[in-house]
Amino acid sequence: MIAVEDALKIVFAHLGHWGTEEISLDQSLGRILQEEIVADRDFPPFNRVTMDGIGLNFDQFERGQRVFEIKGEAPAGGLQKELQDPSSCLEVMTGAIVPTGVDVVVRYEDLEIEEGKATVLLSNLYRNQNIHFKGSDRHQGIVILSSGKCISASEVGVCATVGKNKISVSRLPKTLIVSSGDELVDIDQTPLSHQIRRSNVYRIATVLESYKIQPSVMHLNDDFNEIVKRLESEITDYDLILLSGGVSAGKFDYLPEALSAIGVEKLFHKVKQRPGKPFWFGKKDNKLIFAFPGNPVSSFMCAQQYFKPWLDRSLQSSKTELPWAELVEDVHFKPDLTYFLEVKIIFHPSGKIKAYPVKGNGSGDLANLVDADAFIQLPSDRNDFRKGEVFPFIAYRNLIHG
Amino acid sequence: MIAVEDALKIVFAHLGHWGTEEISLDQSLGRILQEEIVADRDFPPFNRVTMDGIGLNFDQFERGQRVFEIKGEAPAGGLQKELQDPSSCLEVMTGAIVPTGVDVVVRYEDLEIEEGKATVLLSNLYRNQNIHFKGSDRHQGIVILSSGKCISASEVGVCATVGKNKISVSRLPKTLIVSSGDELVDIDQTPLSHQIRRSNVYRIATVLESYKIQPSVMHLNDDFNEIVKRLESEITDYDLILLSGGVSAGKFDYLPEALSAIGVEKLFHKVKQRPGKPFWFGKKDNKLIFAFPGNPVSSFMCAQQYFKPWLDRSLQSSKTELPWAELVEDVHFKPDLTYFLEVKIIFHPSGKIKAYPVKGNGSGDLANLVDADAFIQLPSDRNDFRKGEVFPFIAYRNLIHG
Repeated sequence: MIAVEDALKIVFAHLGHWGTEEISLDQSLGRILQEEIVADRDFPPFNRVTMDGIGLNFDQFERGQRVFEIKGEAPAGGLQKELQDPSSCLEVMTGAIVPTGVDVVVRYEDLEIEEGKATVLLSNLYRNQNIHFKGSDRHQGIVILSSGKCISASEVGVCATVGKNKISVSRLPKTLIVSSGDELVDIDQTPLSHQIRRSNVYRIATVLESYKIQPSVMHLNDDFNEIVKRLESEITDYDLILLSGGVSAGKFDYLPEALSAIGVEKLFHKVKQRPGKPFWFGKKDNKLIFAFPGNPVSSFMCAQQYFKPWLDRSLQSSKTELPWAELVEDVHFKPDLTYFLEVKIIFHPSGKIKAYPVKGNGSGDLANLVDADAFIQLPSDRNDFRKGEVFPFIAYRNLIHG
Repeated sequence: MIAVEDALKIVFAHLGHWGTEEISLDQSLGRILQEEIVADRDFPPFNRVTMDGIGLNFDQFERGQRVFEIKGEAPAGGLQKELQDPSSCLEVMTGAIVPTGVDVVVRYEDLEIEEGKATVLLSNLYRNQNIHFKGSDRHQGIVILSSGKCISASEVGVCATVGKNKISVSRLPKTLIVSSGDELVDIDQTPLSHQIRRSNVYRIATVLESYKIQPSVMHLNDDFNEIVKRLESEITDYDLILLSGGVSAGKFDYLPEALSAIGVEKLFHKVKQRPGKPFWFGKKDNKLIFAFPGNPVSSFMCAQQYFKPWLDRSLQSSKTELPWAELVEDVHFKPDLTYFLEVKIIFHPSGKIKAYPVKGNGSGDLANLVDADAFIQLPSDRNDFRKGEVFPFIAYRNLIHG
């Protein structure tokens, strides 16, 4: 049995490498960028008008002129205009190229316009007011998005602006989820008194969906020979196999032995933690195998604590830090195990993140997961955790609605 | 021009109502539940063994017996067994029904098993140890998930457990996104010197995708008659229309007039805020029309500040609170406007959320959005905001990786 920190180290020492693929920009939300996105020209690409109003010559204003004859207009999307007579002005629109001869833009709100003449109502202007200079945001050739960035709406906007309608992203692993256990029936069946419906595979498939991975799913009964035969024939097609159940100390927990029989190398089995102690991790060639415990809270916690950060790193995502929250009550936990306590997360108007323990009935209590939001990680070297102390947490829902 | 608070009030007073629809559970991530999910039987449905080991009679142990002959086994998924001889024991597996006559389970780790006999190595046990009682998590008939819950992995798990492979969720609005402006060309075109590529529609479409809304997209040039004609024929097919551009004070900003011409009622135009002042909001019958400013930061801010909370409420989501963050530096902002400042969000090991201002070049600086994470909302009645003060923020990316 190894410590949580050592288990994580081993998991992170065996990242997946699945290469890259090119996808359409409109399919890219949540994917991890695998190229640099470079400004194809200056941002903005020309001296740009930022307010609707008139463009005039600043020196004329400085000399005391306040009334300017309107000699034309510069719409957005038009070629660059010229202010030929510096004592006149042009109407200019947001997004237009600043006409030559113009070095200040006065907003309509600060003007009176009558009979083709604009009177400036302000006593002070400054040169270049309301002008957004070519290249002042970013210069052509500059890297705007680095490799590893998770694509959200703002990244999509930048890619659109530079004309990237296809982008290179981390390829997703071909993934198989396997449930095991004779007590499990499928979601659309009515379980007999001694049976329950499968839920782990649905929970884990949903975690994968948030990465846009579409897994295959299969079920194994508690029959050693069948497990060996089916695993051996199935795993060849996949980069990643996520199993749940069959890794505890029970007489029918055949998975560790079956995985060994088909040549999967065990990297560790059992971690000093609650829930999720029986977690098993191994590899075969380039395939990684996460075998989670069968209890619903345990399998879900291991998926959040080990699998997700492993996947983030395998996909070369730059987003890997955990947030921290303050316990709102004392917690006592005696066993020499890292305790992943279910908590509800509140964003307090003090700017603090607060964690409210949601005590369930242990690792079988799958209904408790819906009342909580996260697992807060309490270290194994202590038994008492005080109200007001701060610990990292692993959220399993989208808490800040980004 | 109205205050941000009043604009929000008007927006929230005109929610969309699009009914419900039934969808497959495996398509439900991120959707808003519109039914109560009820425990179809007790959770757990039987007295359940929580550890692999042996099941025995507690009174026998209390009387001093330590060695128990193993008389059989109770696997998970099997019918309930019976411990006929109370001085013997049964091997019991996690997930099995506790056999009649058994009222304590001892883990394999706390046993020595030799020649068909199990010796308990512990000096103390307690009655019902390692037994998870029928109905102790949730009783049959209890509501486990309330209407309004946003579906994440843990909710999918509960639905699977109670056999709901179809669930009722809020129907999504049929949505049209419209860009406008002669300066805009499409993503796959090379803009001329006075043109730029469309990016607002891509950014807004990505926001919609996070709700699983698949919008239609169209573009309008700055031609009043064309705008009227095309809007009139198109909007009949949609519940929701999101426009960008054409709502400022410019001579070619035809949208307010064009929307009025086709019978759209203006609910407000212009909000005391930066960015996004020219934001326009209206309705026609049951259709809601958000007309965002054309500047990329402005349109995105308005989508985050008004549209997303409006959509959350229209979908009857129970998730509507904003988080709070502490400014890490003084900010000065003079205009009498609510200031939505771009910030990078850091989760500090103190448990505090910290906001680092990311100063860009204003509402045209779309590249700045990728360096920040959120808009922090600084009220209009002050000019100075101090380091250490706390304000609500609107995140536009998934900051806590749930």
